[in-house]
Amino acid sequence: MRADYINPFIQSLCTTFETMLSCEITRGQLYLREPNTALHDISGVIGLSGNAQGTVVLSLDKKVALAAASVLLMCEAEEINADVVDAVGELTNMVAGGAKAKLEEYQLSISLPSVVTGTGHEIRFPSNVTPICVPFNSPWGPLKIEVGLAAVQQLAGAH
Amino acid sequence: MRADYINPFIQSLCTTFETMLSCEITRGQLYLREPNTALHDISGVIGLSGNAQGTVVLSLDKKVALAAASVLLMCEAEEINADVVDAVGELTNMVAGGAKAKLEEYQLSISLPSVVTGTGHEIRFPSNVTPICVPFNSPWGPLKIEVGLAAVQQLAGAH
Repeated sequence: MRADYINPFIQSLCTTFETMLSCEITRGQLYLREPNTALHDISGVIGLSGNAQGTVVLSLDKKVALAAASVLLMCEAEEINADVVDAVGELTNMVAGGAKAKLEEYQLSISLPSVVTGTGHEIRFPSNVTPICVPFNSPWGPLKIEVGLAAVQQLAGAH
Repeated sequence: MRADYINPFIQSLCTTFETMLSCEITRGQLYLREPNTALHDISGVIGLSGNAQGTVVLSLDKKVALAAASVLLMCEAEEINADVVDAVGELTNMVAGGAKAKLEEYQLSISLPSVVTGTGHEIRFPSNVTPICVPFNSPWGPLKIEVGLAAVQQLAGAH
């Protein structure tokens, strides 16, 4: 599996933040994720299946989550409540959906987002998948995206 | 969406523990999950897509995870390391795979498992999905399964 599958996710994340939140984000250096790397305060997780299987994680600092949710909900969000959780899930969904459209060859379908909270939570990938992590900075604080994707046999993809 | 989609997951979990781990588990009372319910120490998460979309979470007390991994790996696991993470992912995969076979009408495909660790982590579902939670007891300690599944339109399912 080539590692350039990460680019559609990076593009999709930048576009989502720019068009949905009028927020320009700056990309940091991408790296292969090591175990025991805690995420930010709240993370949206979407499973990808099709001719490739994997997971995309969008992890946001609490301040970023609250600011983004405030824009999407058009009212001030002050704590991580059900609306903020939905907003983070929806952002993750937009990022995954945008990337999926650019990764047509894998005929990906995407799961419902689930959102993980809890100090120091970590989303671990299977040991045969090395997720690529890309940190970003925004005027609201830090965020990052982690993507692990592995090609599957054509037959298995036809489930 | 009828709520009896939970039964294949319950059956699949019991069968997986019995056949793979020779461990008999006892089912507690199922309930609709409230927000702010922390999970056990380590949770496997799998996204489901197809004619229904959703998420299944298998959450294990640390003792259960270590004991189950020790059986699967055929050597004593003493801490939550990469092997234990893989074992929890694989157990979640077996549970989801077994349930998927019994839910043919939804033509589910399942994502790679991701595994979440971190004290007090919580996996939140979209607010329009009410996950069903089923607690279990095992000789090794407590575990639970959470499943949220929502039917999607036929067209959307054909992605």
